[in-house]
Amino acid sequence: MTTVDVAIIGAGPTGLFAVFQCGMQKLRCAVIDALDVVGGQCQALYPEKPIYDIPAWPEISGGDLAAKLKQQAAPFAPEYFLGQTVTGLKEHAGEWHLTTSTGNSITAKAVIIAAGAGAFGPNRPPIEGIEAFEKTGAVQYFVAKREDFRGKRLLIAGGGDSAVDWAVNLAPLAEKIYVLHRRAKFRAAPEMAAQLEALSTDGSGRVELVVPYQLHALQGQGGALASITVSSLTGETRTLEVDNLLAFFGLSMDLGAIASWGLNLDHNHITINPATGATSVPGIYAVGDIATYPHKLKLIATGFAEAAQAAHAIYNYLYPDQPRHFQYSTSTGVPAA
Amino acid sequence: MTTVDVAIIGAGPTGLFAVFQCGMQKLRCAVIDALDVVGGQCQALYPEKPIYDIPAWPEISGGDLAAKLKQQAAPFAPEYFLGQTVTGLKEHAGEWHLTTSTGNSITAKAVIIAAGAGAFGPNRPPIEGIEAFEKTGAVQYFVAKREDFRGKRLLIAGGGDSAVDWAVNLAPLAEKIYVLHRRAKFRAAPEMAAQLEALSTDGSGRVELVVPYQLHALQGQGGALASITVSSLTGETRTLEVDNLLAFFGLSMDLGAIASWGLNLDHNHITINPATGATSVPGIYAVGDIATYPHKLKLIATGFAEAAQAAHAIYNYLYPDQPRHFQYSTSTGVPAA
Repeated sequence: MTTVDVAIIGAGPTGLFAVFQCGMQKLRCAVIDALDVVGGQCQALYPEKPIYDIPAWPEISGGDLAAKLKQQAAPFAPEYFLGQTVTGLKEHAGEWHLTTSTGNSITAKAVIIAAGAGAFGPNRPPIEGIEAFEKTGAVQYFVAKREDFRGKRLLIAGGGDSAVDWAVNLAPLAEKIYVLHRRAKFRAAPEMAAQLEALSTDGSGRVELVVPYQLHALQGQGGALASITVSSLTGETRTLEVDNLLAFFGLSMDLGAIASWGLNLDHNHITINPATGATSVPGIYAVGDIATYPHKLKLIATGFAEAAQAAHAIYNYLYPDQPRHFQYSTSTGVPAA
Repeated sequence: MTTVDVAIIGAGPTGLFAVFQCGMQKLRCAVIDALDVVGGQCQALYPEKPIYDIPAWPEISGGDLAAKLKQQAAPFAPEYFLGQTVTGLKEHAGEWHLTTSTGNSITAKAVIIAAGAGAFGPNRPPIEGIEAFEKTGAVQYFVAKREDFRGKRLLIAGGGDSAVDWAVNLAPLAEKIYVLHRRAKFRAAPEMAAQLEALSTDGSGRVELVVPYQLHALQGQGGALASITVSSLTGETRTLEVDNLLAFFGLSMDLGAIASWGLNLDHNHITINPATGATSVPGIYAVGDIATYPHKLKLIATGFAEAAQAAHAIYNYLYPDQPRHFQYSTSTGVPAA
């Protein structure tokens, strides 16, 4: 049984910055996340991909962003509960009691839901026996390490930004890239779609569009991929010799138990007061991508501000009569500084 | 005559991030600032002082923060108008015409006011002949370079956070520090006030509190300071031999012409819709410390989010019928990337 001031559900960028902001208000936090690392989607989906719109970071990778935020939160000694989801949330005598999927219990005076789009996972193609290839990394749904694909023959499947971006991004490394999509046209940023088109028509044959085709079967043994059979909408098939399948069919998002906590929701998002993060239930706050209000922007920079606002609102909620000497970080520093 | 999409008044952190966010919406900006460098108070008041609450920066100096934000904005080629204030703002045929104190004219489709507390300057003590000592740096109101005070004898005047912080911060460098305040008690963060108390009673005599005293006269010639006479409230005087006077009597803020533009104001702040930055005048937006709404937090992180929201709101205001492929920076990068 762990007792803290604030339980934060979600260890993505917004949840991590909420730990820091709560810490500046002398509120100690526990953080629960379904993934077994902190950083949320930044860490899980694009650890090596550069991000350009984090304030004062002209360029930073998803992994580095997660690491910096974890470092910034560290002086406040948050207690992490990773690889587990919050399955139960009950209020009793002004305190919140959380239980997790691995059997942990956490008691907190307030809760911040920073769960992004909820616990998430890739949409996996319904192909028989694909699990064996997932275990060895022959089939992947995220690019964790770009270098893994140097000199490899790849089939990249999908028609959105991720498929197009990674095809362009991996083209200089891979020996051969097939890009499979069940339509002729890609739904991606025009500039990137144009780059893919250019690569596929440069005469080198290194990048080849296989459209409109879809996945049919995987061949190989011991978890090593030998080839993939693909079929057109009219029934023609091709067999492509590849080492890896990278499938980008989007993410399935699952709000999980959060949906059952009686919070006001709007299209799977939690409605909040944008200036405080307060939900419809006193003591429960929501910040980041899971929180919504009119004109909401789903940007990491917005989530950071919401985290700060929620931390201050929680302080005022817990200590309504306590006047505060508002301190800038330049005056007080942080505990370890 | 310069024509841009957006005129941004104020080149502090929030104004600079507004340039970036406007750029991501393909809106080109001009930026006007009273100071002759970008970075606002961070650059002018505490360029070397560490800040701890910028998201994903466990520690960064005010100067480095300004430099990073300028670098992040650079790919969008903002046009800077520094060392000048906006003296006139008029709307004509759906466009805004700005004139500056140095005679420049700027035309823009929308305006973002990111002016912090307005054009600001230090409150200067009303002492005869002080100007001559200001010119040589013998009298200073900000610490631009900490190393300038190594081995020096200093009189630090003031009773707030700045005076106390700098007394503690410069104690390891300076030969001697007198801390002058007209009351016995300092109005500073308790932790820092305690540190100052400890330094002044450590027996070394290097830090000496001179309370309750106030400035009376400066002695010296050719702009070099020899000594300062201070007087108690009961008329006693002391003459302290020092090389420098650092006076921290707060800032005088001046909204200047902004107050006359017909915007709804609340205690010298511009009231906005927190989700869009829209003021009471269509086409004019306000972000950062100058903007207010219920529960407003004056944090740089909040200003960043407001800048992003204003940039998106301006795009929708200028192009209400144009659907947008919302692009994450990870997909599109920035022009120079």
